Amino acid sequence: MSKSALIIVADGTEEIELVIVADILRRVGVAVTIAGLSDRKTILCAQGISLNVDLGLSEVVDKVFDAVVLPGGQPGSDSLASDERVGEILRRHESDGRVIGAICAAPLAIKRHGIGRGGVLTSYPSVREELTGAGYVYSEDRVSVCKNMITSRGPGTAFDFVLEIVRCLVGDGQAISIRRDMLI
Amino acid sequence: MSKSALIIVADGTEEIELVIVADILRRVGVAVTIAGLSDRKTILCAQGISLNVDLGLSEVVDKVFDAVVLPGGQPGSDSLASDERVGEILRRHESDGRVIGAICAAPLAIKRHGIGRGGVLTSYPSVREELTGAGYVYSEDRVSVCKNMITSRGPGTAFDFVLEIVRCLVGDGQAISIRRDMLI
Repeated sequence: MSKSALIIVADGTEEIELVIVADILRRVGVAVTIAGLSDRKTILCAQGISLNVDLGLSEVVDKVFDAVVLPGGQPGSDSLASDERVGEILRRHESDGRVIGAICAAPLAIKRHGIGRGGVLTSYPSVREELTGAGYVYSEDRVSVCKNMITSRGPGTAFDFVLEIVRCLVGDGQAISIRRDMLI
Repeated sequence: MSKSALIIVADGTEEIELVIVADILRRVGVAVTIAGLSDRKTILCAQGISLNVDLGLSEVVDKVFDAVVLPGGQPGSDSLASDERVGEILRRHESDGRVIGAICAAPLAIKRHGIGRGGVLTSYPSVREELTGAGYVYSEDRVSVCKNMITSRGPGTAFDFVLEIVRCLVGDGQAISIRRDMLI
């Protein structure tokens, strides 16, 4: 059975981080659902790209995915951090051992919802103090893996980030071949 | 006065290539217009992302931009290659010495519309023969610059591609600082 991933987005989500994750997961056969916090069909991304989501978060709040991924960007990351449904989804997937991914400023939502407490993570450099202040061990690697939590730093590390998610969901072989095919 | 760029897209445009170019050009202050071949507001990209364009190509067919950029993906690249308005825009911008960019399969449109004849270019590896057969000199560099024509290879080289366009439009300094800020 094919793997599944939920990507949660909002107005102000970073479009490069969203699109690199969705595109590459689909290329390796993962069933990707892009859910917006609101019930509107369209989000306006951080750099002005207007993009249509697959559905509103309310429609999938009780569903289970093999991975839940949070792209960064602002004010998108703050919106993900302050939405209690995002917290419920992340905590349920964490207890169930599913992959949880967050990049750029989105680890703020990881912190706010109490995911991976005391673990190792990375983020966009500007939010580092907020994360270490909450007890996380900070990594400066382009991608950090701590148990089932995968975090990364910004638009320029989004390929590394999604390739690590690919590795976890469908294995090294697919990660190596998609990296080659896309000339990463 | 700020620089301007036109990105021409169609159903089946590769969303990573489109979004990396639009996002980063906007971050360095370039006024980006995303124009679809049809007059529909929405395009369905190559890996299923549904995205809203700024306007239809008919609305800008007589306008002048500092750069015209063609993202790749299929069938988007074939549609760009077979649309005569794309040819008119490219030839006018070529004679005027403006930047012309094409990535992945989009150099097929460069060839079809007779841009940069006999010059050096690169592309997604699978369309190499079609380009060399038309008399272009083929480069395997991640980005090729030949006079005002900038070409590149695929989603994984899209950051290198747009950074070269940034360098041409707004200078080395901005290219270096945006590369650092985005952790590329």
